[in-house]
Amino acid sequence: MKEQSHQIIRSEFQVFYQYEVFFTKNLFSLENKTLCEFFESQPLDGSKKKILVFIDESIVSHQIQLLESIRRYFDLNIKSVQLINDLIVIPGGESSKNQNEHWESVVSSINQFGIDRHSYIMVIGGGAILDMVGYAAAVSHRGIRLIRIPTTVLSQNDSGVGVKNSINYLGKKNFLGTFAPPVAVFNDSSFLTSLDDRDWRSGMAEAVKVSLIKDPIFFEWLETNSPALVKRDLEAMEYLVFTCAKLHIEHIKSGDPFEFGSSRPLDFGHWFAHKLEFLSGFTIRHGEAVAVGLALDTLYSFLCGDLNEGECSRILNLLKSLGFQFDHSILRENGKDHLQIALEEFREHLGGKLTLLMLSGIGRPKEIHSMDANLLESAFLHLVRI
Amino acid sequence: MKEQSHQIIRSEFQVFYQYEVFFTKNLFSLENKTLCEFFESQPLDGSKKKILVFIDESIVSHQIQLLESIRRYFDLNIKSVQLINDLIVIPGGESSKNQNEHWESVVSSINQFGIDRHSYIMVIGGGAILDMVGYAAAVSHRGIRLIRIPTTVLSQNDSGVGVKNSINYLGKKNFLGTFAPPVAVFNDSSFLTSLDDRDWRSGMAEAVKVSLIKDPIFFEWLETNSPALVKRDLEAMEYLVFTCAKLHIEHIKSGDPFEFGSSRPLDFGHWFAHKLEFLSGFTIRHGEAVAVGLALDTLYSFLCGDLNEGECSRILNLLKSLGFQFDHSILRENGKDHLQIALEEFREHLGGKLTLLMLSGIGRPKEIHSMDANLLESAFLHLVRI
Repeated sequence: MKEQSHQIIRSEFQVFYQYEVFFTKNLFSLENKTLCEFFESQPLDGSKKKILVFIDESIVSHQIQLLESIRRYFDLNIKSVQLINDLIVIPGGESSKNQNEHWESVVSSINQFGIDRHSYIMVIGGGAILDMVGYAAAVSHRGIRLIRIPTTVLSQNDSGVGVKNSINYLGKKNFLGTFAPPVAVFNDSSFLTSLDDRDWRSGMAEAVKVSLIKDPIFFEWLETNSPALVKRDLEAMEYLVFTCAKLHIEHIKSGDPFEFGSSRPLDFGHWFAHKLEFLSGFTIRHGEAVAVGLALDTLYSFLCGDLNEGECSRILNLLKSLGFQFDHSILRENGKDHLQIALEEFREHLGGKLTLLMLSGIGRPKEIHSMDANLLESAFLHLVRI
Repeated sequence: MKEQSHQIIRSEFQVFYQYEVFFTKNLFSLENKTLCEFFESQPLDGSKKKILVFIDESIVSHQIQLLESIRRYFDLNIKSVQLINDLIVIPGGESSKNQNEHWESVVSSINQFGIDRHSYIMVIGGGAILDMVGYAAAVSHRGIRLIRIPTTVLSQNDSGVGVKNSINYLGKKNFLGTFAPPVAVFNDSSFLTSLDDRDWRSGMAEAVKVSLIKDPIFFEWLETNSPALVKRDLEAMEYLVFTCAKLHIEHIKSGDPFEFGSSRPLDFGHWFAHKLEFLSGFTIRHGEAVAVGLALDTLYSFLCGDLNEGECSRILNLLKSLGFQFDHSILRENGKDHLQIALEEFREHLGGKLTLLMLSGIGRPKEIHSMDANLLESAFLHLVRI
């Protein structure tokens, strides 16, 4: 072989992913056959498959009979997989992603119970625990089949139906993670009834977001139904969750599911939200921070002349009528100083060139690659005065 | 929503992967434009991309000028990416995968130098360090672009051109890992000249393996050229590496690249090899253990009546003529007792139903789902007497 010559072999292939998101109620009641039918549809290869279940402790504290219902359901309804009788109850919330020992304990359980990559892990809880257990499942044996059962509005309509997982590491949100589609997601609306008001509300920010970038008819539905949603009408919430999840999944299917490019439209309103969550020490919930981020980018779009005043007002009014607030003390105190830092951190997080969505109308997103510092500060000052 | 009814949204999509494996010599000499041309072919999005380099310390100890050559090459030849001037030298070998602190230190460096997911990580070394750094790259920011520069026969013809990465965890080989294709692989044959004889030989076991299951013409080439290979003829080795890598990549492209099924033909001969490596405390190299595994499965195939005596002898003779040995003391002492344990551990490792390849001829693999315990023991006893 001469010095400069070289031979090349090209490797190229496609990997096909498929999973179903089921919308149901009382998943573990014996009459509900949804889970049963799912397992019957799964390929059998003659080996005995196991299923190991992780549950958010806050769910168990609200529904003490849940552990027993799960055991009974598997015992009576499901023959093709063997439930590991130790249902593992673990703390949920952002702290489960912050502390490495939670993740390590999940991996140890996977090892202890001999869960192989053709067996199943089921995780029941909010977005943080789905992220954390999902990450453990994704890297153990290079990926164990994951069944997600999201229990909050936010996880049922957004993160829980997507393809990502993560833990926080070295003090950075979602520093470690993978893209790993689940094998199935079961959205059980009965879990939503036990949420506190903040969690009930918080998840609706993602519905407002997705309506703004994808579906103006859904935005109008949200305007019309905000009183019912605030009064905790479960049927209205089921419609919201279903529609938001559908728009989210359609985006993943049609776009760049593993985010090889720089554009991430579903992160509309998120560049400042991430910073705000962190500044508040996570006392401001993700959805609450997203609502602030949406309001900020809406005001910026208006000040740029891209969004008209009427639409700007409708967006801010919808967020307010759903109960979101913009006068967090942390914002007044030192939010302004963090605008440019937040932009740069977001660029680093995405990688590559800064790419953000703004609005030129409701349902009409517009991609930009820089923000005018003066207009951004004006938008911020408007925001904290709302 | 009634109790038993449910709605379903199906998510399905394909993810397209592509990478090139370049075969060259003296990659970092200024006249060699291979790396240069690769970076010129990469998409520019207006952002400044960085590259962080990790190097196996055993390479640096053989080629003390390498660090300087890399810096000069980037300085003079490559404008589109910014080399992080700290080239990070880390220990290689299996111990780099065993101890978590090595992996943690790689992730810390990724964080410290602000390497985002559109920047690059380059790793130069043997299979173990490629696995370990590759795993860190795959999960940091959910996947940073990875360039592999394998420096051993084994990594150039087999693991380094594939799609897997891993570390050992909880005392188990490859317990944590992902499927994550690199963006490019550069096989530089000049690295092979500094290998010791054991490493030069060890990697050839994978070439014998792939010839047995894929390409009888290549098997004949190996028979003819084994004297040249043993005498360390570099041109013969370049042909071996190229052909083995090509067969490996063709298998990945045409098959099940992320191993969702149970069948893993490229693991022919590996079920016992994994156990032997472990039993020897990794003093037996991977390729040496694979040669034993190939011999064992060849003898088993013969004793089953699937493989004729002439072909069985040709295979054993080729392995011996390449310098592989089967009389490891660990085999004589307690290998036999571990046959059934090794089979079960391999099944757990793959997940699902036990699926193994045996031979019905050279280039003619045969899938089986169980091994006869008596025949297996006879094969083993033949093996240790060879």
